[in-house]
Amino acid sequence: MVDQIHIYYEVTCARGSHIEQISHAIALEQTVEVPDDCIHSDFVREHIVGQVLEISPLEKKDNTYLVVIGYAPDITAYQIPQFLNLFFGNISLKNYIRIVNVTLPECFLEQFSGPNYGISGIRKILGVYDRPLAATALKPMGSTPETLANMAEAFALGGGDIIKDDHGLTDHSFCPFEKRVRLCQEAIQRVNLKTGRQTLYFPNVLGSAEQLGKQVEFAVKQGVRGVLISPFLVGPDILRHLSAQHKILFMAHPAFTGTHFHDPQHGIIPAVLLGTLFRLLGADISVYPNSGGRFGFSVDECLGISEALQKPLGKMKPAFPGPAGGMQLNSIEIMAKQYGVEAIYIIGGALLQHSRDLQQSTRIFMQKIRSLFKERLTTPVYEMISAGDWGGGSAGQDRRSHLAWQSDFTWTGRAAEAYKAESGLAFAKIRRQELIGKHGEKTGFDLRYFQIEPQGFSSLEKHRHEHVIIAVRGQGVLQLGKRQILLKPHDIAYVEPDLVHQIRNESAEPFGFFCIVDHERDKPIAP
Amino acid sequence: MVDQIHIYYEVTCARGSHIEQISHAIALEQTVEVPDDCIHSDFVREHIVGQVLEISPLEKKDNTYLVVIGYAPDITAYQIPQFLNLFFGNISLKNYIRIVNVTLPECFLEQFSGPNYGISGIRKILGVYDRPLAATALKPMGSTPETLANMAEAFALGGGDIIKDDHGLTDHSFCPFEKRVRLCQEAIQRVNLKTGRQTLYFPNVLGSAEQLGKQVEFAVKQGVRGVLISPFLVGPDILRHLSAQHKILFMAHPAFTGTHFHDPQHGIIPAVLLGTLFRLLGADISVYPNSGGRFGFSVDECLGISEALQKPLGKMKPAFPGPAGGMQLNSIEIMAKQYGVEAIYIIGGALLQHSRDLQQSTRIFMQKIRSLFKERLTTPVYEMISAGDWGGGSAGQDRRSHLAWQSDFTWTGRAAEAYKAESGLAFAKIRRQELIGKHGEKTGFDLRYFQIEPQGFSSLEKHRHEHVIIAVRGQGVLQLGKRQILLKPHDIAYVEPDLVHQIRNESAEPFGFFCIVDHERDKPIAP
Repeated sequence: MVDQIHIYYEVTCARGSHIEQISHAIALEQTVEVPDDCIHSDFVREHIVGQVLEISPLEKKDNTYLVVIGYAPDITAYQIPQFLNLFFGNISLKNYIRIVNVTLPECFLEQFSGPNYGISGIRKILGVYDRPLAATALKPMGSTPETLANMAEAFALGGGDIIKDDHGLTDHSFCPFEKRVRLCQEAIQRVNLKTGRQTLYFPNVLGSAEQLGKQVEFAVKQGVRGVLISPFLVGPDILRHLSAQHKILFMAHPAFTGTHFHDPQHGIIPAVLLGTLFRLLGADISVYPNSGGRFGFSVDECLGISEALQKPLGKMKPAFPGPAGGMQLNSIEIMAKQYGVEAIYIIGGALLQHSRDLQQSTRIFMQKIRSLFKERLTTPVYEMISAGDWGGGSAGQDRRSHLAWQSDFTWTGRAAEAYKAESGLAFAKIRRQELIGKHGEKTGFDLRYFQIEPQGFSSLEKHRHEHVIIAVRGQGVLQLGKRQILLKPHDIAYVEPDLVHQIRNESAEPFGFFCIVDHERDKPIAP
Repeated sequence: MVDQIHIYYEVTCARGSHIEQISHAIALEQTVEVPDDCIHSDFVREHIVGQVLEISPLEKKDNTYLVVIGYAPDITAYQIPQFLNLFFGNISLKNYIRIVNVTLPECFLEQFSGPNYGISGIRKILGVYDRPLAATALKPMGSTPETLANMAEAFALGGGDIIKDDHGLTDHSFCPFEKRVRLCQEAIQRVNLKTGRQTLYFPNVLGSAEQLGKQVEFAVKQGVRGVLISPFLVGPDILRHLSAQHKILFMAHPAFTGTHFHDPQHGIIPAVLLGTLFRLLGADISVYPNSGGRFGFSVDECLGISEALQKPLGKMKPAFPGPAGGMQLNSIEIMAKQYGVEAIYIIGGALLQHSRDLQQSTRIFMQKIRSLFKERLTTPVYEMISAGDWGGGSAGQDRRSHLAWQSDFTWTGRAAEAYKAESGLAFAKIRRQELIGKHGEKTGFDLRYFQIEPQGFSSLEKHRHEHVIIAVRGQGVLQLGKRQILLKPHDIAYVEPDLVHQIRNESAEPFGFFCIVDHERDKPIAP
């Protein structure tokens, strides 16, 4: 029966009760919810009811046993809600049962994609290796979007890697989601363009069921590459769903999970819940309250989470541990000893407390890390990937073959992003959408849609590779050497190799166009 | 500050710690997540940080205090995820904090609709008064849809009120959701038509984030009038969302909530979580493990839930307590003493265990209830109401004025249901959708869409009121007295008073037509 799901429970027996009976009662409770004598079908008895595989007394705890129960994976219907139900649905309402481990068979794991990028993907996006990453949080709640954007800018200028919203920032009247996300993302993009490094901003998505998907879409359109989400506040399967739809980074927050952890005799241990389960749901980063902070996790619990996030789990990528919750600048050495390189050190309030100059505090944060680790830097690489190439489900496959035009001139299944010149060339008011070529297609070309707002322009540049432009909406001016061409919808333009060129919008309406280029191509340079 | 949210905590102090400090730390943790010295804005200090309003020692528990903290309601953004976060997000990760009560101001409550029907609405649908309702569960998992449908039929024939799926039944390969729902709903409808009474079937909706909405839609199209849902497995706000979209009954199940309850010093007490919170989310019925069963709730905890479900809460309807979890036939007297009339007694496994003849067991169940209460019966009334008249949000209002045609010949904002003859007349293969007249409109007429599949027919009947028929798709035969009229799209037919008539589909394609009738009208009778 290697294909079963094995759940490992620590069960504490009340005096006079029998561990065999309790174990079998768990196997019934989590499946059929009837006594044995109500089961009249062999299939139910043999396939549905959990099988108690092992009962062994624990040395260190009196009247406590390790119980292993095997379950047929199809009981879960290969879906998160029923998996959670099998895991700890009804027995959460009992006492003295703690889940301490789980092993999941391949047939189950292959139904889930896990982290979109994981540790190696995040490092590639940042171009940062051989040292832990440095993160902070935008707070306090009640600050204006402008204040938070200034903080984001200061943190990016100070050289930090990741800045997230505090997990309580939502769509408040005093700090609306869209304004906050736009200003903070613009702030870090401004700095990134200047420094050539990458700081990532993770806005918090915590809206109603109606809003959540729209919030992520909005963030992606602003060029955001990751979001913060609290699976237990919005529903665990929502993380999996959003992660399958949007191939961005997901940082999971443990809010509202804590009742599982405070009693050593009941619940699901942190390693399983915040480690294995959150990774299964698609967390690239799992934030948790580190030992020594203002919450109560032990060192072993924290290391357990870190291990569960990184150990083999089907084909899923390892995810980053994100120790947080009251970390100080002088916690860095301790965290370095605990976690080594593969962690994101999150210091929030203490960074603000250190000085009102966040840029300066961040510099100290980074210096402390660099004093302990010798970092290696490469060019940040972010391959824009979105739902279109996400082969996880049939919806994904539909999106792959059909990119539906939408009235705001975006196409379904592809994320729009802010335009980013690759070599620091000046540009303004452009967004782009990678349509074909970056999403697993085998084409020798890339098809992109660009849109330039009034007074916007692309960089004045040249390169070996050619451009083919098809105007779609509005009108724009193509500068080709000394020539100027006015492009209107359905016009086609060709830019020959090494010809200096620029596209400007001198009209009052957006100018949108397709641009087709070779998939393999050289970088643009200044004239 | 009467407009604040007041949360009541029981806080246990470790020796040497100060309750004032702990209380203020809670007020910071749940809002700004920074120390006081990081707050530089008056707005944040005065409006965002929680205000400790009361600290009083508890007589019965050493080192334990009742702490009341007031929060500005706009911190919640008037949405469930951030409300849960304010409630118990980060402090769930602390220890020795238990939420024992909450008061919510009008400005918060009026953002939520609560139960669609509540106790009085359910009684009206069933036509049953002055006695508790009797419910059971379809189980065990692993049974075929046919077996479960037979159980549903037996329970309905035995005179039971409500039959729900076991909460672990989902879209299993061995018992697919759609087949189960269709067969079980057909089974109870068959019985209801025969008896003139109502038994309601609540299928369990426990799919992935992609599936949940579709599962509810499918169930509604089958004529289902309520569903079972586990808010903590699918996400609490999903219940609120579905309840706003579908004006059917929602029965909430406590799976995966239990870690809040097992420790008397930490978590959210059952009355607040399974009572107030679930009612706020839209539960018409809250199922919970009753004292004396196979779970550990005390009598007081159970009565607390029952009270919270029924006490004044803004304009929200009182909801039914659903004590369950190991109730026996001989628990009925005890439940009667505990809860009196306003409860749904749920007996699952014990009913199956009593006898393999579920119809007979159900009769005994009903006799026991009737021996303790003198029931009063009226004609069951179910006013088909769906999203269209649900004025809770702008989406609802759009749907009210615009019913969009969909390619499967349904209209948005209205639930399709199986056709039900009102007086036992024979019919076959018809579905209908109430479009105008039953959704809060003031029209003197009702507009309905009917669709008859090949070989299907409406009942041969007559009545005082007239019919106007407009053919929409396919073709059908209208029998008018001895005449037969072939109806094709755009044809209009008029059926005069007292004329015996029937509509048949003798073609190979579906026949669809609008039917317009007076809003106030007499019942059809046999020729």
